[in-house]
Amino acid sequence: MFTYRHQVQFYETDMMGIVHHANYLRIVEESRVAWAHANGILDYQKPGTASHLAVYETQVRHIKPAKFGDILDVQVQARMGRVKLIFEYKVFRGEELVAESRTTHVPLDSQLKLIKPPAQFKKVMETQKWTETWLSSL
Amino acid sequence: MFTYRHQVQFYETDMMGIVHHANYLRIVEESRVAWAHANGILDYQKPGTASHLAVYETQVRHIKPAKFGDILDVQVQARMGRVKLIFEYKVFRGEELVAESRTTHVPLDSQLKLIKPPAQFKKVMETQKWTETWLSSL
Amino acid sequence: MFTYRHQVQFYETDMMGIVHHANYLRIVEESRVAWAHANGILDYQKPGTASHLAVYETQVRHIKPAKFGDILDVQVQARMGRVKLIFEYKVFRGEELVAESRTTHVPLDSQLKLIKPPAQFKKVMETQKWTETWLSSL
Amino acid sequence: MFTYRHQVQFYETDMMGIVHHANYLRIVEESRVAWAHANGILDYQKPGTASHLAVYETQVRHIKPAKFGDILDVQVQARMGRVKLIFEYKVFRGEELVAESRTTHVPLDSQLKLIKPPAQFKKVMETQKWTETWLSSL
Repeated sequence: MFTYRHQVQFYETDMMGIVHHANYLRIVEESRVAWAHANGILDYQKPGTASHLAVYETQVRHIKPAKFGDILDVQVQARMGRVKLIFEYKVFRGEELVAESRTTHVPLDSQLKLIKPPAQFKKVMETQKWTETWLSSL
Repeated sequence: MFTYRHQVQFYETDMMGIVHHANYLRIVEESRVAWAHANGILDYQKPGTASHLAVYETQVRHIKPAKFGDILDVQVQARMGRVKLIFEYKVFRGEELVAESRTTHVPLDSQLKLIKPPAQFKKVMETQKWTETWLSSL
Repeated sequence: MFTYRHQVQFYETDMMGIVHHANYLRIVEESRVAWAHANGILDYQKPGTASHLAVYETQVRHIKPAKFGDILDVQVQARMGRVKLIFEYKVFRGEELVAESRTTHVPLDSQLKLIKPPAQFKKVMETQKWTETWLSSL
Repeated sequence: MFTYRHQVQFYETDMMGIVHHANYLRIVEESRVAWAHANGILDYQKPGTASHLAVYETQVRHIKPAKFGDILDVQVQARMGRVKLIFEYKVFRGEELVAESRTTHVPLDSQLKLIKPPAQFKKVMETQKWTETWLSSL
């Protein structure tokens, strides 16, 4: 299971004293990018491929608030749908589940037209385990 | 139908030249706050009530990219579930649907324990029309 | 004096209960963009000209904290230096000075090389009043 | 010399394809917090002390644009002024200087009134080397 670590920054908090909910989409993006880089399908110098994976849908379920300084471990799983690429995330603080998320993506060309997923992506996706769907529909 | 206007700022764009997807949760928060203020259930000087409506779940579906300078009109509808307060949003640029979103919220006390929705909230919620659910489950 | 209005959003606060300091650069950017648009030197559909005014230096001095819901009025003044374009900002809440800021900018071409300021910019700049420098050097 | 590493995230870029300038204040905040933690004057669970070091002034000078995926190393130096605590930062990408920054801070009590710097802070500050001022006045 690919896992990405993020420490909560001061600027990610809001006046409730907890991480503002919109920042979870940034944290799971960090983990998705790290996953793509670790799997050889993201070159930071030529981000085209991965950045052209436009975000289609996002979901986040908040279970516990996260606070300044918390160490969050984000587990990532990915699979290929018929058209969409689907990522799911579990955000843990130690043993405690803080949030769950799902994002789906569609491959676009540089004119933002729908294209087939790059072969390289498909190949990587086939190597991924997806034992169960984490996020029951919201 | 309550509608809130937001103009896309330069700092909301990303290197794809479009509004970064995490910013939609900020834009719908703006509209939700404006809705709560317009309905007399948010006092900026004592934000307790509304801010203690913790965000439980968020969903966004992206239909068209939004760009720097775009004028976005966010339609807001709200209803009370058994425990949760449910908001839905349609983000338009003129006639064009840019994004749809749903957020659900739970009322918490200052120790972040679940409480009953404030009576004032319930009363306002009962006045709201919710003719159809906009966001089929993602 | 060009003035731009910004209402403080919930997501702009931090765990101190006040606007996070980094957000002031976003708020003055909003005012600078509005100023450029009002002066006919920014076309949102072709943002090239203004966006190629790269930010060179920024300064902010914080005098009072701003809070959720505050209405902030940003006064903007601009002048042309020999190479740089200089903007200054005063951020007011009613009569109260909340922050002062200065940003300087240099015109770059699409390869990020230094170029002469566009003639249109120079012309506008000459029409601006700059009676006194607001921000003594920090 | 204390050094903090930050990798540029996708969401930190803007439509110019580079890190948005407001994000530098976030990156130097990360480095300042890490410095305070490393020096034993910030407890994430009781952030009071450090968070009550209100930001008074900020300056950033941008020398090179930073891009998605760049590894940035932030050098931090700190000293005590008569009233203010002064931090300076150099942001490097390898050997290349990307940005310089200075932030000044004042200690406030929980009612946001000016207080004397905590003794612990003074003691740490006295151990810091500050051989030269990096940021000539902007």
